[in-house]
Amino acid sequence: MSATAAEAEFDPATAIAPPNAEAERAAAERQPTLTKPPGALGTLETLAITLAGQQGTPRPSADRVAVLVFAADHGITQQGVSPFPREVTAQMVANFANGGAAISVMARALDAELSVIDVGVDADLSALATVQPRKVRRGTRDMTVEAAITDAECTAAMAAGAAAVDAALASDGGRPDVLVFGEMGIGNTSAAAALTSALTGAPAMQVTGRGTGLDEPGVQRKADLIASALRLHGLDATNASDAGTNARRALRCVGGLEIAAIAGGMIHAARNGVPTLVDGFIATAAALTATRMNAGLRPWLIFGHRSAEPGHRALLDALDAEPLLDLGLRLGEGTGAAAAVPLLRLACKLHNQMHTFAEAAVAGRTE
Amino acid sequence: MSATAAEAEFDPATAIAPPNAEAERAAAERQPTLTKPPGALGTLETLAITLAGQQGTPRPSADRVAVLVFAADHGITQQGVSPFPREVTAQMVANFANGGAAISVMARALDAELSVIDVGVDADLSALATVQPRKVRRGTRDMTVEAAITDAECTAAMAAGAAAVDAALASDGGRPDVLVFGEMGIGNTSAAAALTSALTGAPAMQVTGRGTGLDEPGVQRKADLIASALRLHGLDATNASDAGTNARRALRCVGGLEIAAIAGGMIHAARNGVPTLVDGFIATAAALTATRMNAGLRPWLIFGHRSAEPGHRALLDALDAEPLLDLGLRLGEGTGAAAAVPLLRLACKLHNQMHTFAEAAVAGRTE
Repeated sequence: MSATAAEAEFDPATAIAPPNAEAERAAAERQPTLTKPPGALGTLETLAITLAGQQGTPRPSADRVAVLVFAADHGITQQGVSPFPREVTAQMVANFANGGAAISVMARALDAELSVIDVGVDADLSALATVQPRKVRRGTRDMTVEAAITDAECTAAMAAGAAAVDAALASDGGRPDVLVFGEMGIGNTSAAAALTSALTGAPAMQVTGRGTGLDEPGVQRKADLIASALRLHGLDATNASDAGTNARRALRCVGGLEIAAIAGGMIHAARNGVPTLVDGFIATAAALTATRMNAGLRPWLIFGHRSAEPGHRALLDALDAEPLLDLGLRLGEGTGAAAAVPLLRLACKLHNQMHTFAEAAVAGRTE
Repeated sequence: MSATAAEAEFDPATAIAPPNAEAERAAAERQPTLTKPPGALGTLETLAITLAGQQGTPRPSADRVAVLVFAADHGITQQGVSPFPREVTAQMVANFANGGAAISVMARALDAELSVIDVGVDADLSALATVQPRKVRRGTRDMTVEAAITDAECTAAMAAGAAAVDAALASDGGRPDVLVFGEMGIGNTSAAAALTSALTGAPAMQVTGRGTGLDEPGVQRKADLIASALRLHGLDATNASDAGTNARRALRCVGGLEIAAIAGGMIHAARNGVPTLVDGFIATAAALTATRMNAGLRPWLIFGHRSAEPGHRALLDALDAEPLLDLGLRLGEGTGAAAAVPLLRLACKLHNQMHTFAEAAVAGRTE
């Protein structure tokens, strides 16, 4: 069930090669030859060019998409930060496995391969045969009392994420063109908000949201708990520009096992030349944490969706990221990124299949 | 080639029944039972509910999509309002027919049926067997000199749009769930900008954009030409709230044959209970014109994309519309709406296929 010794050696700082500048340039040179005014397809043009660089080919693809959903519980739920009981994490993992959750439906609709990975659910999930067992421990500790995870557990969770990526890359369906990381964990908007505050310097109240549906007093109480956890761990005065060490300490003290797994997974995917389409608040908290541990990750990230959770803005600003969609989603599971998958596919098909002015015998500009 | 007598009697003001309130209510009641916090899928929830009302079923679908692209030329092109020559309209129609244009690629990728309809191209397109011949006349007259089309031509063009919708509804592939209207016509951002100014009262300069790629002095010159056309036809002081008559006069004096065809097509689709997913600037100019002629159209419209053309904002404000996407597209052809088709499909599948809390045995809120 636990990470292997080799996995436990996962080092987030190991170098990541940059995307392929030559493939990106070749794609950028193709775009103005296609039968449309230059730039008229907006972000669909830049998306194809970015994917070309990431995939190292002037003709990129987003046909094969793998969705990895990491599940874990959170010690802070004992403080009552969510209107849903802690048991819902395990129940929703069963719902994923049975095809009834939002991300299950979307993965099916998109013909994407869905993997569900238990990195820290506080329940015995061994009866769910399709759930990958990579449990590091049964939930984090309560961050308002002590550090959520130990340094070894943090490494093990990142390694579990990397191992799940390895499994996805070796899929029978072929190597994925793009990865989506999703999560499930009652209480994880508290962890993400705490991480956001620690990494960006934004006040807890500003980055704390309704989660699964708190009312206003509930949000205030949640923000107070987060602020007190940050004070306890000395993270309230963190210098946001003090990269790697602080990010890792924040992840360990106030993060989560699924967040660490996603951070490790994104870094490992980038090292293997596979881009990540980033989901909403929780996944972006993992992305910023991972980027602080390894700046080479940033050019491998495409942002799918702007979450309705208020903390997402601070994360996106820190990453200088502009998501493709803004549809008021605040569910997680990878659903915001999944909703953007068709845009990547359309961008690639437009780039690859449109005829050029010469091929179509269409006149160019007269001036 | 021309509209039949029956078609020529098309009356845009004939009543449109509202969407089905009972189906909409049933869909709205299903959403909170699905395994997610209420509202957590944001616009994907409201989209499914809206489609349920429009389609008159609590379980809507967007599987079958028909894309109708109307092509026509514009008299104002002799004033040099586009960096591309007028011949490009006919050349692009051939490109549509040969599968090389952006909308061709997108329709294929989306498994949507693409129809290309000539309502006013200044060329003999009879050699293109797949292009529907519904030509009203070879291009509009120059709006800076005289009215673009006669009242009879305006009716004939709206009727041509309605006839093309009838053909799409009778498709062998089954009745479409949703229609997309696109257009091709060198010079048609000038017509759309003039219509926008006439219908919303916004100054010509504010709603005139780069079109296929004008530089700043070119945009200024285009805006001056539009302003002079509006003065010539007495449309510069139009009371934007004086609905039907003014809209029709604006369409006749400064509009276009493809714009009139789309306006007629949207109204005819709504009368047949089929919603329209509205494209960008040109299609929205047709939508506002049609809505002014028949207010019953508005609830049948879903807006796909916010165009980079500056005039689109004034149109969307006048329609109180919030598009699904904002990706900097400014191509037309129906591409902005096509890019949003997957969101409609995902919204329907989530609505129809997600398990309820009861089905999944997931605990609900504790408070």
